[in-house]
Amino acid sequence: LIALLTNIRIVLIQTTHPGNIGAVARAMKNMCLTHLCLVAPKTFPSVDADARAVGAEDVLAQAIVCDTLDEAVKECRLVIGTSGRARRIDWPSITPKQGAEKLVAGAQSKNVALVFGREQSGLTNAELDRCQYMVRIPANPDFTSMNVAAAVQVLTYEILLASQLLSIEPQETLPLPRQEEMRLFYQHLHEVLVQIDFLDPDNPRLLMRRLIRLFNRANPDQKELNILRGILTAVQRQLKA
Amino acid sequence: LIALLTNIRIVLIQTTHPGNIGAVARAMKNMCLTHLCLVAPKTFPSVDADARAVGAEDVLAQAIVCDTLDEAVKECRLVIGTSGRARRIDWPSITPKQGAEKLVAGAQSKNVALVFGREQSGLTNAELDRCQYMVRIPANPDFTSMNVAAAVQVLTYEILLASQLLSIEPQETLPLPRQEEMRLFYQHLHEVLVQIDFLDPDNPRLLMRRLIRLFNRANPDQKELNILRGILTAVQRQLKA
Repeated sequence: LIALLTNIRIVLIQTTHPGNIGAVARAMKNMCLTHLCLVAPKTFPSVDADARAVGAEDVLAQAIVCDTLDEAVKECRLVIGTSGRARRIDWPSITPKQGAEKLVAGAQSKNVALVFGREQSGLTNAELDRCQYMVRIPANPDFTSMNVAAAVQVLTYEILLASQLLSIEPQETLPLPRQEEMRLFYQHLHEVLVQIDFLDPDNPRLLMRRLIRLFNRANPDQKELNILRGILTAVQRQLKA
Repeated sequence: LIALLTNIRIVLIQTTHPGNIGAVARAMKNMCLTHLCLVAPKTFPSVDADARAVGAEDVLAQAIVCDTLDEAVKECRLVIGTSGRARRIDWPSITPKQGAEKLVAGAQSKNVALVFGREQSGLTNAELDRCQYMVRIPANPDFTSMNVAAAVQVLTYEILLASQLLSIEPQETLPLPRQEEMRLFYQHLHEVLVQIDFLDPDNPRLLMRRLIRLFNRANPDQKELNILRGILTAVQRQLKA
């Protein structure tokens, strides 16, 4: 799967602020992507890029610098562009999730690219001509201009989800107590509530039902149930003392 | 929709780099969020924050500065923390999408908060005690440390997506207790556990944390919390008798 993700290259066009390049590298590495391609960056390499990469300097060191978008994507069978705003012509616009799924599917057999435009003006129409699809990140209609590293973060996050690489990490799950053990806990709880004069067995109202609903919702694991039983036993020990 | 999203506050704890605060403001405004709360920021206001906000200076101007997390979330009925790494105890960790859905559902009737920790060290366990849930952003296991603004971007993106869904979780029918009341319940529980010799204050181990996790998961409503407090008081009455 890591190999799969290395087939996905992130292409940045004419980035003005080198700090953004560093932030993109960090976002990529966080999401298991490593292949960065810079088209005519204003300043690169740069100390600002290194500073913002914070541990992703290896992505910067491996980055490829090209003169044109054509050169950056010449081996790619699938190229997807990104845009935060509506276009004059209605390009086939898809969601980040749809774009990520297409990239991950394509990366299984070939190189694919996801292209981000200039900080100020995005992608030109000529550049969009190179793209099979355009991803539009949903945004506030009154404030669509996203930082390029933030846009990369959203898309690479969707790519990681799509790759199902780590989608749901197994939690260290403790075995859930059996129904029978829950029943014994509720019986113990009822007993103690009567002993401390909190519950009148002749007029129980809805008290136990409310407590059962509460603890069922919490769905205690075995260790937690042992703690609760231990507390009840400790109360009873005090009553006898 | 916009009104709903203003009920969701983003809380940043002890942010070191003011540039990150500006980047967070921009990410928030991009995703229609406006309510920013800063707990003990190192430097704020700041020209670096303004520079990185690029059009979201209004979010910075409205930002509230607090001394403590308790102060920042005192009116919030739902508080969700974020973490990039695994914790010693398995906190109820949920995905960004699940967290966003809970926040959007909660924001229909009340103030809710999403909390981000320090750039270097995230949230402390004591701060996580204030949270009903912890969101874990899936990431490269070898490089989990995300920029705080990038983490905010992922979560606010999921919040915007969740807010656009038509099917929203049914609302709770009973008012949820405020954070302050939960805190008082845990204080009372701790007191009783010491009195019945179940908890040794000199060697508390993880007991309270486990119980906090259990009851936070159950997310008791006001009536249920009153019952729990009543049980604790009834135990104390027996001890005095």
